[in-house]
Amino acid sequence: MAQAVQSFTVVTPGRGLTDITSRVVGFVAGQSIASGLLTLFCRHTSASLLIQENADPDVLRDLETFFRRVAPDGDHYRHGDEGPDDMPAHIRAALTQSSLSIPVVNGRLVLGTWQAIYLYEHRAIPHQRELVMHLIG
Amino acid sequence: MAQAVQSFTVVTPGRGLTDITSRVVGFVAGQSIASGLLTLFCRHTSASLLIQENADPDVLRDLETFFRRVAPDGDHYRHGDEGPDDMPAHIRAALTQSSLSIPVVNGRLVLGTWQAIYLYEHRAIPHQRELVMHLIG
Amino acid sequence: MAQAVQSFTVVTPGRGLTDITSRVVGFVAGQSIASGLLTLFCRHTSASLLIQENADPDVLRDLETFFRRVAPDGDHYRHGDEGPDDMPAHIRAALTQSSLSIPVVNGRLVLGTWQAIYLYEHRAIPHQRELVMHLIG
Repeated sequence: MAQAVQSFTVVTPGRGLTDITSRVVGFVAGQSIASGLLTLFCRHTSASLLIQENADPDVLRDLETFFRRVAPDGDHYRHGDEGPDDMPAHIRAALTQSSLSIPVVNGRLVLGTWQAIYLYEHRAIPHQRELVMHLIG
Repeated sequence: MAQAVQSFTVVTPGRGLTDITSRVVGFVAGQSIASGLLTLFCRHTSASLLIQENADPDVLRDLETFFRRVAPDGDHYRHGDEGPDDMPAHIRAALTQSSLSIPVVNGRLVLGTWQAIYLYEHRAIPHQRELVMHLIG
Repeated sequence: MAQAVQSFTVVTPGRGLTDITSRVVGFVAGQSIASGLLTLFCRHTSASLLIQENADPDVLRDLETFFRRVAPDGDHYRHGDEGPDDMPAHIRAALTQSSLSIPVVNGRLVLGTWQAIYLYEHRAIPHQRELVMHLIG
């Protein structure tokens, strides 16, 4: 049994999904752990993780439209000091994931053909986001 | 320390929750790992995982009604090539889980009395869905 | 490699978020596992887990307002025997987490500066909730 941990930073362009699959795949490929469990963790409460389709970018646009409708920006929240997009960002993070765990078989993540791993930035402006990858096996 | 990994396929009847608890319980019981961590992973973006009540089937019906209301079928999505139920399926998957982790104590999952593990099919017609179970301990 | 498992009970005051970070941090600190993975599991389907902001309590109030609006109490659910707040509680649990996994580095959870771990009680009246912590590393 062995373990590996690595942190990395993603600079987001503001609201939307950034594909981080290759980063996670590369980390797993760089370890000599053939069989195990990869856990990804997001160190923020206004950005989050999501596994979603990797093919049609319209899926990502429709997801963004959905979340804007469900948790609209505005001054109707109690928590407003950080701007009209901050509380919606917390709600969107609550509805998605802070951590994801994916089994590793034969040195590869068992992601399905159409699955990508995304960092979902929920704030309107660009941010630096810190993620942690942990592999055990 | 030891590990075990196993994939399995679930044929879904179309939209709704399929109880897969016995399948996961059986996998754990078949390993000689008394204490550990079970992770379940769904290799799809229009089906997902959920831990929910195992007693009253009306809970599952109400859940389905809720998700149909929150993400209705229709032609108002950008992503429409795969049918009016495909983009809602992606949204429903985003709001639920791709992976679940459950501790194992004395060779058994620590599920609560009323908890079952479900595969949630979000597409209207039947599908074959692949899941992966990983146990370490 | 080593493991540790511990259960604990949280008495909730009814609907709302209870900060359980210190409980989880204390468990990790009490083990001699410098590097590893902490998994937290909630043994209920009308209470759940959430990582959210630890600073402004208004964030927690706005989250509660959001979930009450998305899944309102009422007699319009099929599942009503346990009260008008029970089915909404199941929906809220489905939209949040049953399990959370957080890497441990240098004996500490890699939580971000603004992150706390919450048990989210979704029922109107106080409950005793059982959680399980599992650490491997």
